Formats: sequence, structure tokens, C-alpha cells
Amino acid sequence: MADRGRFITFEGTEGVGKSTQLQRAARALSDLGLEVEITREPGGTPMAEKIRELLLAPREEPVSDITELLLMFAARAQHLRNRILPALEQGRWVLCDRFTDATFAYQGGGRGVPPEQIEILETLVQGDVRPDHVILLDAPVETGMARAKKRGELDRFEQETLAFFQRIRETYLERATANPGQYHVVNAELPLDQVSESVTALLIAIARMPSTA
Amino acid sequence: MADRGRFITFEGTEGVGKSTQLQRAARALSDLGLEVEITREPGGTPMAEKIRELLLAPREEPVSDITELLLMFAARAQHLRNRILPALEQGRWVLCDRFTDATFAYQGGGRGVPPEQIEILETLVQGDVRPDHVILLDAPVETGMARAKKRGELDRFEQETLAFFQRIRETYLERATANPGQYHVVNAELPLDQVSESVTALLIAIARMPSTA
Ligand SMILES: Nc1ncnc2c1ncn2[C@@H]1O[C@H](COP(=O)(O)OP(=O)(O)OP(=O)(O)O)[C@@H](O)[C@H]1O
Ligand SMILES: Nc1ncnc2c1ncn2[C@@H]1O[C@H](COP(=O)(O)OP(=O)(O)OP(=O)(O)O)[C@@H](O)[C@H]1O
Ligand SMILES: [Mg+2]
Ligand SMILES: [Mg+2]
Repeated sequence: MADRGRFITFEGTEGVGKSTQLQRAARALSDLGLEVEITREPGGTPMAEKIRELLLAPREEPVSDITELLLMFAARAQHLRNRILPALEQGRWVLCDRFTDATFAYQGGGRGVPPEQIEILETLVQGDVRPDHVILLDAPVETGMARAKKRGELDRFEQETLAFFQRIRETYLERATANPGQYHVVNAELPLDQVSESVTALLIAIARMPSTA
Repeated sequence: MADRGRFITFEGTEGVGKSTQLQRAARALSDLGLEVEITREPGGTPMAEKIRELLLAPREEPVSDITELLLMFAARAQHLRNRILPALEQGRWVLCDRFTDATFAYQGGGRGVPPEQIEILETLVQGDVRPDHVILLDAPVETGMARAKKRGELDRFEQETLAFFQRIRETYLERATANPGQYHVVNAELPLDQVSESVTALLIAIARMPSTA
């Protein structure tokens, strides 16, 4: 039996560098000889990716906050059972581009859904599964938005206001402050290579820690 | 201001005659001069119909019970806010082909999700909105399946076992027994016209009752 892998999530507001840093981190961990699986939310399985499309598509019909919340967790239930947990059980490290912290930040801080309602769904879908470590890439909202804007067409979330993303950033930072052992806040305003160096150093330190599972 | 409309749902296992009876009931109520809106679950709005497609499509990927449950309620949140409640507020009667009783019956009785978990989502999505009346068309599972089979391609639910549908029928009947004022059990084994006569008589009686809202 292989040791259980570690479950590491990358979080932060739009364009802070989550996807870029996750790719680089995966290479660094592979270079250490670890088996690494990269994935993202919402999504990560064929059905969950279909739910992602429903969530991100701009649409005429108003989308209720509760609909958005339930779709996020519906996708997560598939992703967790069909992909994340099996990989961890096989000893693979799972690097995931956003996870439940994003739900607390976007649907909670951003939309205003009470955190207690999100916690009920978190327990329903995840039981006691939580990320082992959360890498929170933090930068002023404007910095990330300027980086992300270069990509063209905006999805349903990217069309939101600056105030929406500021509430999201604050919620992420509050969660990190409340759980310093699990969260690692990285200054994502620095140049790309400097951010990568911080993230890689962090992951190497994590790899040397004894697994808690 | 018009009086609030009544919210009537049609429930029962596969092929008992829900869609047929609902159409006929809508005509009977219109003939009484009432404004009637007919709709169905999962579905009833463009986004909810997309969720319906995700739910019904047969697929290779195993679908977790919780995913199915959350998708049902995600569709319901859209349907309730964007269609059912506005229609009721305008004084229209809403006849809905399946609603939350189907979730208790299929995801609860059928799949084995504990009813307490379903109740949590019911409250999250609906607050205290419940159907004014539930018409439960009841027939032996085999009768309905024989009728429905003529339609060709089976969806993800229709591919289930007889035992699955028997648990569903029992759950429906238990809910009806527990709430005799809200549920009306109609023998759906009888010929189509006899069933319609019972349903129409019931709806005319309901139309004469004072509205509780
Ligand atoms: N530290 C950095 N300095 C300058 N540019 C960066 C930095 N990090 C990322 N970028 C660039 O910003 C853009 C957005 O990066 P990336 O897609 O990794 O962000 P993201 O957080 O995944 O965005 P989204 O939230 O939209 O998925 C990319 O063009 C990337 O090269
Ligand atoms: N009482 C009845 N006697 C005989 N045939 C019936 C009766 N009620 C309905 N049918 C026929 O059975 C078939 C299924 O009916 P219908 O589609 O109304 O059922 P349903 O409950 O809506 O099914 P489903 O659960 O699959 O949506 C139709 O062909 C219909 O004409
Ligand atoms: Mg990204
Ligand atoms: Mg039908």
C-alpha cells in the first residue's frame, strides 16, 4: 500500500496566477519523484465539466445564488468521488485549481450566501475531507483582473464588479488567518518567477512534513 | 391584486399517467375560467431544462446520489424563483409534473438518501413553499412500466430495477398517508377516462375550497 497522497488546492481571485503556478508546482513535485495529478473546479470529470459549462455560461435567465451554490457542490461531489479520492488513495498528490474555499469566497463573500449554509453542503458532500494545504495567491484585485482581461470573452463571474472581487479577496484572507496551519498566503503581486520560487519552496517543505493521514 | 393561484403537483411512478392527466386537468380548469400554467420537473426554465438533460442522460461515469440530489434542487431553485412563484403571485394556477415529493421518492426511497438530508435542501431552496395539493397517481409499478416502455429509449432512471420503483411507490404512499389533507391518492390502474374523471372532480372541489394563502 502506497502512502496516501496530499491534497493541495490553489486559490485566489481572478488572474492571480493559480493555473500558471499549479502547472509549475506540478513539474517541481514530479522532479522530486512524486506522482502528481492536476485538476480543477468546477470540473475535473466529464459530468462535472458539463456542470462547469452551465455555471460559467453568461445567460439571460437570472441565476439564483442557491442554484449556483448547489451546482458547485454537485460538480464537487462527482469530482471528489470519481477522481480526487481515488488518486489520493493511490498515493498521488492532487493539485486542484480552486476547491471549496472558492465557494466560501465567491458564493459566500461575493454573493452573500451565509457561510453556515455553505458548511452544511460542505459536510453533506465532503464528509470530513478537506484540503491538506491551501496555497492562497493574494494580490490586489485590480492586478489579477488586468492580467486576466487579456484573455478575451468574460464568463458569468468575470462580468462581476470590482466590489464583488474585493469581498472575495477579503473572505479568502479571513479564512487563511483563521487557519494558519492549513493556509499559505503567497504574495502574487511579485514577478511570476518569484511567486513560483515561493510556491515551490512551500511544497518542498510540505513534502518533507510527515503525512497526517 | 388577483388572489394567489394554487400550486398543484402530479406525482407517481413511471408511466402512471402524470403527463396525460395534467394536460387534461389543465383543460378542465381553463374551462372553469381559471388561468393555468403547466410545467414539469426537473426543468421548467431554460437553465433548469439544461440541468434536466444532465440528470437524465445515461452516462459511463457513475453519478453519486448526492450529485443527483443537488442537481434536482439546483433545477428546482431556478424553476421556483423564475417561474412557479411569479405565476402564483399573478393568480395563475400552476400544475407541475413532479416536484419535491419525487425527490423524496426517487433519491430518498429509491437511492437511499436519508430523508433528513433531503429536508435540509427542501428548506434551503423552498423556504416554506410547499405544493397546496399533491395528486398522487398510484398503480402497480408493472402497470406503469408497461405503459411507459412503448416510448423507446430509456433514460438513466428508467433503466433502474423493479425493486427501485417499488421503493418509490411505497415512499409516495407513506408521504400521502402522513399528510392526508395535502395528498390525494388516485387509482391510476383504471382506464384513462375514469382516472381523468376522478382528477377533475378533485380539482373542481379544490377550486371551491377557500385559498389558504
Ligand atoms: N506573478 C505574475 N506576474 C505577471 N503576470 C502573471 C503572474 N502570474 C500570472 N501572470 C499572468 O497572468 C495571466 C493570468 O494567469 P493565470 O491564468 O495563471 O491566473 P488564474 O489565477 O489561473 O486566472 P483565472 O482565475 O482567470 O483562472 C497569465 O497570462 C499569466 O501568465
Ligand atoms: N389509465 C390509463 N390507462 C391506460 N393507459 C394509460 C393510462 N394513463 C396513461 N396511459 C398511457 O400510458 C402512457 C404513459 O402515460 P403518461 O406519459 O401520461 O405517464 P407519465 O406518468 O407521465 O409517465 P412518465 O413517468 O414516464 O413521465 C401513455 O401512452 C398514456 O396514454
Ligand atoms: Mg486559471
Ligand atoms: Mg410524464
